[in-house]
Amino acid sequence: MTKNIKVNAAILIIGNEILSGRTQDTNTGTLATWLNSIGVKVNEVRIIPDIEKIIVENINELRKISDYVFTTGGIGPTHDDITAASVAKAFGLKYEVHQEAYKILESYYKPGEFNEGRQKMIWMPENAELILNPTSGAPGFSVKNVYCLPGVPSILKSMLGGLKNKIVGGKPILSHTISLRTVESEIANSLTKVQNENKDVEIGSYPFFHAGKLGVSIVLRSENQNRIDKCNSQILGFVKEKKIEVVDR
Amino acid sequence: MTKNIKVNAAILIIGNEILSGRTQDTNTGTLATWLNSIGVKVNEVRIIPDIEKIIVENINELRKISDYVFTTGGIGPTHDDITAASVAKAFGLKYEVHQEAYKILESYYKPGEFNEGRQKMIWMPENAELILNPTSGAPGFSVKNVYCLPGVPSILKSMLGGLKNKIVGGKPILSHTISLRTVESEIANSLTKVQNENKDVEIGSYPFFHAGKLGVSIVLRSENQNRIDKCNSQILGFVKEKKIEVVDR
Repeated sequence: MTKNIKVNAAILIIGNEILSGRTQDTNTGTLATWLNSIGVKVNEVRIIPDIEKIIVENINELRKISDYVFTTGGIGPTHDDITAASVAKAFGLKYEVHQEAYKILESYYKPGEFNEGRQKMIWMPENAELILNPTSGAPGFSVKNVYCLPGVPSILKSMLGGLKNKIVGGKPILSHTISLRTVESEIANSLTKVQNENKDVEIGSYPFFHAGKLGVSIVLRSENQNRIDKCNSQILGFVKEKKIEVVDR
Repeated sequence: MTKNIKVNAAILIIGNEILSGRTQDTNTGTLATWLNSIGVKVNEVRIIPDIEKIIVENINELRKISDYVFTTGGIGPTHDDITAASVAKAFGLKYEVHQEAYKILESYYKPGEFNEGRQKMIWMPENAELILNPTSGAPGFSVKNVYCLPGVPSILKSMLGGLKNKIVGGKPILSHTISLRTVESEIANSLTKVQNENKDVEIGSYPFFHAGKLGVSIVLRSENQNRIDKCNSQILGFVKEKKIEVVDR
């Protein structure tokens, strides 16, 4: 596969606990940072409740418009873990015992500990490919372009290494940050000019408040380092003219 | 308005910096917690890039299926702040100088400081209602059921107080958490039974790892305290039978 194609992904965070505000989602940041590093751009994230109809609808919508879909959450042993059954439904596949997952968990647990609750975690869409879990045994799985990962952040993180070879990215998305001791309104017009002259570079402007002082971080993102460098010099040009201090951050 | 109606909301987080993983979104948690406390249930969150077409499509989709839509981000002075223009487009309204916002910012800044960059922040959809900003002057705004807030978390938080009287919630969603020194698989079947007997209570099960020990938090959510209490006793019943320790968390 050529490495020039732009590759994108959608992330589907499944879980009432995020929507109620009880739990702070961090999986979006983990997945987005990792995907960027392997050349996959996240186009959209959705956070939805543990309701089968809604999960099915979102999977079917996102898998058609995205190269990859990553879901998090809902693959544990309890009644509110319905991601695997929902993915089966979305693809019109049987929901059945996965023999390889069965073997993995049977040998993972001590004799007698592979109880009924845990056995729920080996039910998957038929012919699902496993995503191995070096932390707690129970694997994630993929069906076509939909990759289902657990919600617990530390377990999700530990599974990305094994997933890397299954995801074919495009060119990595490079980024460069310039932090300035200024406020956005002072640089807004100059920055607009740079953006208009460099439409293929994504230029973001983010105010910050750090160590008691206001500042602005300008983030340049592109697959092409030369384009980033060109923007960077244009920005440093107007920054010098305006006598704005460049700061570390 | 009766207080029995269920009221729901969607949150639309606008910003490339969240999708790239550069910035950790915390506004979802802030808004969701606050909305729950005033009886508004968050049905869905979407995180989308700073692209007008996508913002317009999402606003038009979400405002039709939700009682309220809250957007965050994209209302500052720079070129990537396009939320106000996008909302105008979504509603087919003019995008114009808001006279009241003009007056607020004119008196907020020192003479000569209300520059062209800052003047971008008074451009809004025609007849937008302002949401006052006690932190940094520049107001948010609403058009019908769409409420547009800034992306900077501390500023967003400071604006919720002024917003409270504009949002009419239903009954507050009550919640109760029971934390147990166990693993999910040990209680999965018993919990499923409680859920099946109490379909109107949302029962979530969340594993945790705290101070070196594994545990599970069970969260019960309903508008009706009696229903929560009933679930709670059923759960404490099987917890006692299984000799599982209840812990603080």
